[in-house]
Amino acid sequence: MTAPRPNPLLSDRDVDFQLDEVVRVAALCELPAFAEHSRETFGLLLDSARRFAREVLYPTYRTLDAEPPTFENGRVRVHPLMRELYPRLVELGMLTATRPPEVGGQQLPLTVHALASAYLMAANLSAYAYLGLTHGAAHLLEAFGTAEVKAAFMEPLYRGEWTGTMALTEPQAGSSLADVRTRATLAADGTWRIQGSKIFISGGDQDFSENIVHLTLARTEGVESGTRGISLFAVPARRREGDALVDNDVRVAGVIHKIGWKGIPSLVLNYGESGDCRGWMVGQPGRGLACMFQMMNEARIMVGLNGVATASVAYHEAVAYARERPQGRPVGAKDATRPQHPIIEHADVRRMLLRQKAIVEGGLSLLVTAAYQADLAMHAQDEDTRRGAGLLVDLLTPVAKSFPAERGFEANALAVQVHGGYGYSSEYLPEAWLRDQKLNSIHEGTTGIQGLDLLGRKVVAGGGAALATFADAVGRTVARARKAGVEATWGEALERTTGEVAELVAELGARGAAGEVELMLRHSADFLDLFSVLAVAWRWLEQAAAAKEGLARGQGDADFYEGKLATAQYWFAVELPRIPLLIHLCRTGEDSYARMRPEWF
Amino acid sequence: MTAPRPNPLLSDRDVDFQLDEVVRVAALCELPAFAEHSRETFGLLLDSARRFAREVLYPTYRTLDAEPPTFENGRVRVHPLMRELYPRLVELGMLTATRPPEVGGQQLPLTVHALASAYLMAANLSAYAYLGLTHGAAHLLEAFGTAEVKAAFMEPLYRGEWTGTMALTEPQAGSSLADVRTRATLAADGTWRIQGSKIFISGGDQDFSENIVHLTLARTEGVESGTRGISLFAVPARRREGDALVDNDVRVAGVIHKIGWKGIPSLVLNYGESGDCRGWMVGQPGRGLACMFQMMNEARIMVGLNGVATASVAYHEAVAYARERPQGRPVGAKDATRPQHPIIEHADVRRMLLRQKAIVEGGLSLLVTAAYQADLAMHAQDEDTRRGAGLLVDLLTPVAKSFPAERGFEANALAVQVHGGYGYSSEYLPEAWLRDQKLNSIHEGTTGIQGLDLLGRKVVAGGGAALATFADAVGRTVARARKAGVEATWGEALERTTGEVAELVAELGARGAAGEVELMLRHSADFLDLFSVLAVAWRWLEQAAAAKEGLARGQGDADFYEGKLATAQYWFAVELPRIPLLIHLCRTGEDSYARMRPEWF
Repeated sequence: MTAPRPNPLLSDRDVDFQLDEVVRVAALCELPAFAEHSRETFGLLLDSARRFAREVLYPTYRTLDAEPPTFENGRVRVHPLMRELYPRLVELGMLTATRPPEVGGQQLPLTVHALASAYLMAANLSAYAYLGLTHGAAHLLEAFGTAEVKAAFMEPLYRGEWTGTMALTEPQAGSSLADVRTRATLAADGTWRIQGSKIFISGGDQDFSENIVHLTLARTEGVESGTRGISLFAVPARRREGDALVDNDVRVAGVIHKIGWKGIPSLVLNYGESGDCRGWMVGQPGRGLACMFQMMNEARIMVGLNGVATASVAYHEAVAYARERPQGRPVGAKDATRPQHPIIEHADVRRMLLRQKAIVEGGLSLLVTAAYQADLAMHAQDEDTRRGAGLLVDLLTPVAKSFPAERGFEANALAVQVHGGYGYSSEYLPEAWLRDQKLNSIHEGTTGIQGLDLLGRKVVAGGGAALATFADAVGRTVARARKAGVEATWGEALERTTGEVAELVAELGARGAAGEVELMLRHSADFLDLFSVLAVAWRWLEQAAAAKEGLARGQGDADFYEGKLATAQYWFAVELPRIPLLIHLCRTGEDSYARMRPEWF
Repeated sequence: MTAPRPNPLLSDRDVDFQLDEVVRVAALCELPAFAEHSRETFGLLLDSARRFAREVLYPTYRTLDAEPPTFENGRVRVHPLMRELYPRLVELGMLTATRPPEVGGQQLPLTVHALASAYLMAANLSAYAYLGLTHGAAHLLEAFGTAEVKAAFMEPLYRGEWTGTMALTEPQAGSSLADVRTRATLAADGTWRIQGSKIFISGGDQDFSENIVHLTLARTEGVESGTRGISLFAVPARRREGDALVDNDVRVAGVIHKIGWKGIPSLVLNYGESGDCRGWMVGQPGRGLACMFQMMNEARIMVGLNGVATASVAYHEAVAYARERPQGRPVGAKDATRPQHPIIEHADVRRMLLRQKAIVEGGLSLLVTAAYQADLAMHAQDEDTRRGAGLLVDLLTPVAKSFPAERGFEANALAVQVHGGYGYSSEYLPEAWLRDQKLNSIHEGTTGIQGLDLLGRKVVAGGGAALATFADAVGRTVARARKAGVEATWGEALERTTGEVAELVAELGARGAAGEVELMLRHSADFLDLFSVLAVAWRWLEQAAAAKEGLARGQGDADFYEGKLATAQYWFAVELPRIPLLIHLCRTGEDSYARMRPEWF
């Protein structure tokens, strides 16, 4: 194995563009919550994250992929590099970057944190995953824990001394969390005895921190089924007794051999085999799922970022390869005595690269926007702005989660294809990123679940208030694009299509209200597809407007802006026109798979 | 690792349907070439192949995937199971099944051989690949070798004593074979001295047969560049001297770590490091590429079958899993006290399965048709039929090669998705088939090359004669469907779209004739996509007609036929309507990636 060549992971110029020219992040500093900050302090986090990502984290990627965790004598050993990497990731300040000073944080915008994270994910997503999970667990404790629980568990997590996990899934309870069977029984000392089994627990064991806290869903006595009996518990691998940490009866029962994310183990955990596993309740009894779901937008946006990051690193690798790999000659100039030209000169290779660019940068723009709206939803001064932004975040989350997973997988496959036979070998990295990407359509709610969430809840919630807010935002983008001199047909098409989607939603919502729920939701996958293409078209129009504005300023960078305009053109020519067919399928309730019986397959 | 559960690999009912109800294979027995045969003798090969595939070959798949070949002290060791498997594959008669009695063959139709192969490929594609390559090498020798060369090399290959390879690619000569640099110098004894290096040579070494014959492209002296200097040579790993086999100076210089097809090594070979590598010319000097390309249709149809087979085995696994995996409850009936239902009851899971079925069975039908036309092209009695069939085979080959690779990859990814988190682990097999499938878009001409071949050569060849033949065939299918009572709008849409595609081809051809070759070929990938959807729609209409006829006979099997009709419905509702947008892109020459400059990425 040779060291991989340097890879920018994300384009710095594009990140600055998204922040300064697309969403204008500096405006956030006008809000009291971010008054201590400036564009310069945002830049400090970004700079340190990207430098660490490129210089330290990326060079470890191949090693962690090739040498996954081992399981012996009941303990998991992860790659020894993690002993170095985890503390250095903590030092970057990512764990608490967005948290308030009360818990040791810097209260930076999610927008900035998301982009800093994206560099780290692109560099080595499974090494970063320990930190993401720890942040998620600590944040849950911060939101719902008592003072005692916070002191006991949140603080060492935020300090980076311990790591955290999310222990939701059981063999019979994956997409259907209402079927959780792990039990919690109240003990005389006020803690709970936990008994049961969890599966697919990422980072459920490792050997680089002294303790791990499992945020665990379990069923309390009395309510035998459904979601109301499920509460959330902090269950440490080792519990404090006096000054010591003693075993808390959580056992690793097996390792799942994942095909990607090889730096972090996915485990089966057994709780309370010896009857001595103690848990501390987090939040109200019976509100376990509600607590989890309150953090779900953030978790799903993180998955979306993983998808964009994994497609991005492969895209940059494919562009570099296509620029230097000679093969063949221009169409109509086959003279074999002439030297071969680089494959980026072939139209079809440029098509594959442009498609990747459209997905990667369109996806990044969508995620930056979702994060920006999340910042406004939490910190804007007037309630209307907060409410509108909150609606938009809710609406965009299933798209921001699933678009990078589904279309990012396509982009990652194209990066393999650009590498030809070399791409099919593990001497080159694109195949590894292709494996990594596949998880993103499965974890934190499958793409199927995202489709049901979008069509069954988000677009019809509040009588379509979220969709109206989205249409307003589209209108503002169209106005900006018009003013900037962007090709007028793009804005017209976007506005017209947005209107057609709104009409479709009204029709489907009426079916649902009339009790025809199956018919309403039958094409939820097609609806998710069309709404994703629409949302990304919105982001491409915004980018085209910003690019035109940039060209008008005439301060160089023309190559960058022309590339943006060509990519926007691609999206409006190739992707947006797919929507009418998908609308037609949703509207007519095309019934081929609805009527397909199990015995017909 | 547990043994995999039984998997049918392909549906026997579907294979019989394709043979007897879709193409009516028994009619081939009326041709003199197949006069010795009957539907029963066809069945014998199919039965023995499917039984061997299910009982012997499939149970070895996981082992060969997990324990790839090793390379030590200059020699490659493949899995010891191959010592048993290869002779048994030879015993099946697959090597010579389609060859005439003169070379020990049975002269069976390609149609039958293709389906028998598909079972073996679905069971264990890399174990079968040794046989496919050996057949290809022997067939080249049969077609172009002198009597001496045939006796020396073809005979032991067809007897299954030796194996063969295709040694075309070099580091600088992949898609661009005109850049081959391996040299051949005529020696005084009439043989050639070969010197050079080849890469990606599948089966380039192994330890289960006493010899390997490399069909090698090399450049003879005097013509320094281009295709005219390239000839074809038989270069054995060990050459005969008296009664002995002695080393022929072909060295393994490295192993490529492929991500799939793990049972067969992909190697770097060095020829003539000691100046003593001898080759025997096959065919005329300077005709090496021409000889290779004469076998290309057959080779590409084999790749297409690999794609269908790999998607098929995963589809059957996904259906079985979806029938038995309980998770969630019906929409609108969320009562968690009720047992969960199997996921095949979820509309979105049925969508994913139906999409796989549409790709797998549509692809299989396309390949059976291509093979059937190839049989007619070689053996029909009247010249018109032979010519028409030949045109159709040429036209369908790039589609038959690339559709299963591209859409099969999509189907394989859906099989992973249906398995949820389990699908992301190597404890389950869908991820392995996903890895295997990716090669099919790369080897034997990438998808990009297939698009150029289809649009730049096949559809415009002979003033559009092939396309006219295709349109005639579509017309016959539409008539059959009408008579059978198939939904009339499907046939109308197919005929209309075929006409629109023909108009497009005329326009694009005119551009090419006017010297605008770049503009003509710019959207060759979109053209390949649309023509593939069209060709598969043609096969789905044929299948729908056969299904209606079957239902009308009323002899049971209604589930099978209803499944066919629902899948045809899906293709006509979801895929065929994509074509107008793709036509529009080709016609307007949408220029986003054409004008994209390398520095804009």
